[in-house]
Amino acid sequence: MIDRTDPEGAIAAAAKRCSNWGRWGADDVRGTMNFLTPQKRTQGASLVRRGVSFSLSQSFDANGPQKGWRRRTNPVHTMLDTGTDAAAGVQGFPHGIGGADDVIAMPLQCSTQWDGLGHIFDHGYAWNGRLAAEVVTSLGDSRTGIETVADVIAGRGVLLDVGRTLGTDGELPDGFAITEEHLTATIDAHGVRVGRGDIVLVRTGQLARVRRDGWGDYAGGPAPGLSFTTADWLHRTEIAAIATDTWGFEVRPNEFDDAFQPLHQVAIPHIGLFLGEMWDMEALAADCAADGVHEFWLTAAPLPITGAVGSPVNPIAVK
Amino acid sequence: MIDRTDPEGAIAAAAKRCSNWGRWGADDVRGTMNFLTPQKRTQGASLVRRGVSFSLSQSFDANGPQKGWRRRTNPVHTMLDTGTDAAAGVQGFPHGIGGADDVIAMPLQCSTQWDGLGHIFDHGYAWNGRLAAEVVTSLGDSRTGIETVADVIAGRGVLLDVGRTLGTDGELPDGFAITEEHLTATIDAHGVRVGRGDIVLVRTGQLARVRRDGWGDYAGGPAPGLSFTTADWLHRTEIAAIATDTWGFEVRPNEFDDAFQPLHQVAIPHIGLFLGEMWDMEALAADCAADGVHEFWLTAAPLPITGAVGSPVNPIAVK
Amino acid sequence: MIDRTDPEGAIAAAAKRCSNWGRWGADDVRGTMNFLTPQKRTQGASLVRRGVSFSLSQSFDANGPQKGWRRRTNPVHTMLDTGTDAAAGVQGFPHGIGGADDVIAMPLQCSTQWDGLGHIFDHGYAWNGRLAAEVVTSLGDSRTGIETVADVIAGRGVLLDVGRTLGTDGELPDGFAITEEHLTATIDAHGVRVGRGDIVLVRTGQLARVRRDGWGDYAGGPAPGLSFTTADWLHRTEIAAIATDTWGFEVRPNEFDDAFQPLHQVAIPHIGLFLGEMWDMEALAADCAADGVHEFWLTAAPLPITGAVGSPVNPIAVK
Amino acid sequence: MIDRTDPEGAIAAAAKRCSNWGRWGADDVRGTMNFLTPQKRTQGASLVRRGVSFSLSQSFDANGPQKGWRRRTNPVHTMLDTGTDAAAGVQGFPHGIGGADDVIAMPLQCSTQWDGLGHIFDHGYAWNGRLAAEVVTSLGDSRTGIETVADVIAGRGVLLDVGRTLGTDGELPDGFAITEEHLTATIDAHGVRVGRGDIVLVRTGQLARVRRDGWGDYAGGPAPGLSFTTADWLHRTEIAAIATDTWGFEVRPNEFDDAFQPLHQVAIPHIGLFLGEMWDMEALAADCAADGVHEFWLTAAPLPITGAVGSPVNPIAVK
Repeated sequence: MIDRTDPEGAIAAAAKRCSNWGRWGADDVRGTMNFLTPQKRTQGASLVRRGVSFSLSQSFDANGPQKGWRRRTNPVHTMLDTGTDAAAGVQGFPHGIGGADDVIAMPLQCSTQWDGLGHIFDHGYAWNGRLAAEVVTSLGDSRTGIETVADVIAGRGVLLDVGRTLGTDGELPDGFAITEEHLTATIDAHGVRVGRGDIVLVRTGQLARVRRDGWGDYAGGPAPGLSFTTADWLHRTEIAAIATDTWGFEVRPNEFDDAFQPLHQVAIPHIGLFLGEMWDMEALAADCAADGVHEFWLTAAPLPITGAVGSPVNPIAVK
Repeated sequence: MIDRTDPEGAIAAAAKRCSNWGRWGADDVRGTMNFLTPQKRTQGASLVRRGVSFSLSQSFDANGPQKGWRRRTNPVHTMLDTGTDAAAGVQGFPHGIGGADDVIAMPLQCSTQWDGLGHIFDHGYAWNGRLAAEVVTSLGDSRTGIETVADVIAGRGVLLDVGRTLGTDGELPDGFAITEEHLTATIDAHGVRVGRGDIVLVRTGQLARVRRDGWGDYAGGPAPGLSFTTADWLHRTEIAAIATDTWGFEVRPNEFDDAFQPLHQVAIPHIGLFLGEMWDMEALAADCAADGVHEFWLTAAPLPITGAVGSPVNPIAVK
Repeated sequence: MIDRTDPEGAIAAAAKRCSNWGRWGADDVRGTMNFLTPQKRTQGASLVRRGVSFSLSQSFDANGPQKGWRRRTNPVHTMLDTGTDAAAGVQGFPHGIGGADDVIAMPLQCSTQWDGLGHIFDHGYAWNGRLAAEVVTSLGDSRTGIETVADVIAGRGVLLDVGRTLGTDGELPDGFAITEEHLTATIDAHGVRVGRGDIVLVRTGQLARVRRDGWGDYAGGPAPGLSFTTADWLHRTEIAAIATDTWGFEVRPNEFDDAFQPLHQVAIPHIGLFLGEMWDMEALAADCAADGVHEFWLTAAPLPITGAVGSPVNPIAVK
Repeated sequence: MIDRTDPEGAIAAAAKRCSNWGRWGADDVRGTMNFLTPQKRTQGASLVRRGVSFSLSQSFDANGPQKGWRRRTNPVHTMLDTGTDAAAGVQGFPHGIGGADDVIAMPLQCSTQWDGLGHIFDHGYAWNGRLAAEVVTSLGDSRTGIETVADVIAGRGVLLDVGRTLGTDGELPDGFAITEEHLTATIDAHGVRVGRGDIVLVRTGQLARVRRDGWGDYAGGPAPGLSFTTADWLHRTEIAAIATDTWGFEVRPNEFDDAFQPLHQVAIPHIGLFLGEMWDMEALAADCAADGVHEFWLTAAPLPITGAVGSPVNPIAVK
């Protein structure tokens, strides 16, 4: 049981139990992505049977969920050239060619995304025991920038549709803490295995709910999500990454009286685990429910933005 | 032979010969991505043998090649929170958690990218015969925005290393126009086939050169690239997409006396072909040269930025 | 009386009555700023008696009123370097110097601002009878960009505190249409004159209200403001510019059944009048109410952003 | 004489001699702007004789001098709506109204600007002895943000045209260190006085040179500028602010062997002095040379960007 009054003690204990510091050497920058080996990729590719593909990305536009928390905004997309300009004949190009270009300004954590290893710190320490102040300055993450895993994230994906398995009408309520028991029950219900190097997708159903009811407090408010107590499972299973269809991966409100994302504080700096957030698993989950196959080939390549502590991503699952 | 004095006539003739307007119905927004079928994906997945993965993306940072052409700049990456802030204890979070967030502002055509179907027009017409002024306004591309192919671009990739096959020290000189004959010779040399639904990567070697010598005029200056005369090959082969390691896909200077990217004017609005630019094929090409295998599984998922006429992309090849 | 069913007819009639097209020649780009002469400036400077200065600018930050209308957002301010970086010793400068730099991304119409002459068109025509499509493209305003008045806007300011004069507790209710009669009554109450070359500030009190009650729909919603019927007064008085403490200068909802900012459509393209919006007149107005002097020296210099159709501004009044 | 080998010692000694810490109380955030009193403003306004106005701002656009130093870029200005859109009839507004809006993204130090008091630190200390790490975080400057002087900077301006007085053809060469003797000689030549609360503009002529010859290394390279030895003059004269027509105010290369802007390190955190950079004094200076009057009314209001360590500005001089 969680002692709701002592997040700091619980975090310290979990961090000690689950630490991967030094596991891949003092210079490591890839954390659990080290589990995602070529063998896992050949295994994953063998899961492509029908050739159907699914984008797991939400839209990137002004209609997103961001409301200003930590100054996160929705993307601002503007045009450098347009078809109306081309039609008006003002572009100055020869032989009838016209063109359109565009620009985007956005927080890297505004929509479907990866958290990089420089995203969260524990008492001033970043992944592998490095000093946060030396790793992530205003210049960005000089060690574990998201570009360090630019070529890794393609492998076996497993969908754990906890919403469909344990929820009502396919959805878990806000505040529902998904425990190891829930994960195991879902795994068993799906008849799938989860293990080293897998990329695990946990569907809570919250995204389906906010699509129906409006964003509300999707960005930062109450949500179903992983219980703090799953830290050991996340460590023990040796998965490469985990993603949810929610804003913040873990259950909200958090399971301590005064807390902010305590599972992040263990998972990212101590386990070295990559977290995906705001993934859209709806179409994929419907397909998995229909054919009973919850494993697939998954590519989720971050943009190699030098020094970024996260990245927008369009994950592609192929079954 | 090309009549260097008549780009407009040559473009009109090629457009007529190669048009795919209406091929997939009046409402089509995916152009040649229609060739990339589930069958192609199962075929492509079977090419994963060793499980090795390659990122084909250049970096996204301030050290890129952009010099202001069409107001394109290099990305500006700034931090919303940092490790130095966390270490200084100024973030106000409980139980010792600290965090870093970041923001990017960039042209969507600044580094490794896809051109969407709304990127280029011919005499005021966009893909499938639509009016450019109705398709792409300041609000973006309301019909063929890059989000319309968010789930498609995963399939069989083929590398045509024209630089290694026909160049000196693996590189074609600037101004080298790659013709159908060059493509065929490379295909034959590699012992690979190219056909319907493939994603074709053409390596010229220019990126290797500018990496060695400095960006110079990589963004917009002289370059090896596809000859205007390959329009029929691009159409006839029914490939899904083609990408190069250069800024602009086609040979520069262009093959007409007064011209600006004439092959784009046929390929995008008339063939409905997706063009990739500034892809980094160096590591992949070295591997292909070593093992003699020039085909692979390729995922190149654009960010679904609503209404965008292009997208940054981190293509992942797996062999 | 306004025929609420015929905005187009009313606009056309007012445009005809009030047009300044050609008044300053075919090449004119300054519109009513031509009224702001050196003589007006010497007159204005003589109004500086006590030397007290007032900023009439709202804040530029994430807590502003913008909610996405026409994709307008609040400013995003990020740091390129910080004091926490400097203190952490990671900046790499010699002899103990440290530094901080910053970046802003914002719509030019997000907070206290000037509307430039390229901001509004009437049936495809811009100020002085130019074609909107030739004046304002994706490259910006090539003729009447805000930089063309970079050195002009300093002169005699007059505050018309209609809120204090005619409102309840100093505020006009939303939807209150300020007519010429209201303006005249306020002028008389203040004992001030308004004429050629003046910069007129109209305080409605709405900003005081939203400061107290929350932004609500300040950006785009109901508001007190100028009646459409003041077009003739705006033209006849030959003022150089007019500004309000509201989002949109004119009364909202507008005075026609189906309308969007009809007075703008006359004032900007036909009169060539500069409109200021979202100005904060609270401190100045309190001072004017206290000493009974409603005229002052006013400098309201736009940033000379080349080709901009508006500009953020920090107007400074000195009495 | 300057010991070129000991910048740290020289800075420490100058800081001790020139410190204004505590002069206006422990809570002060305005530094030398405290010298700019209402009396100074009435004095300044009396200098308006002919009513002619001058903008001292360079352009804000993509053609500026920035080349990436400290990741500073030139402004990126994009449109949210255009005249071409309006003319194409795609904006969806009633009664023939059309509109254009725009967006800017730019470093606050990219063109004509004020350095705020949070811009430079000395050994981790900011203005008035505050800890830099507590004052300027990723959230911006929480104490001395530029908004704290939003209403102050209007008063008496004095142009010291050192370029015309002591240079060749009106220009000082790069590397020319302007000493107190040079300032005094210029003051004497102009027959003007400089004292408490004045805003002093120092013209070197470098901007005229780069306008003629191209930007070159204007942003960060060699330049004429204030000698480190003027620290005492800057302190003793009790001026409110000083600005130059160069990128960095002080002479470049700096006068120590291994140095970076040592005069900043004294002027900003210790004197609490506001520095203006990249001001365009050309038109004003020509007028002053013509009529022999080098004093004027000056308004140079920063945008009140909350927490900014600097601000773009369009200073307006009126004579």
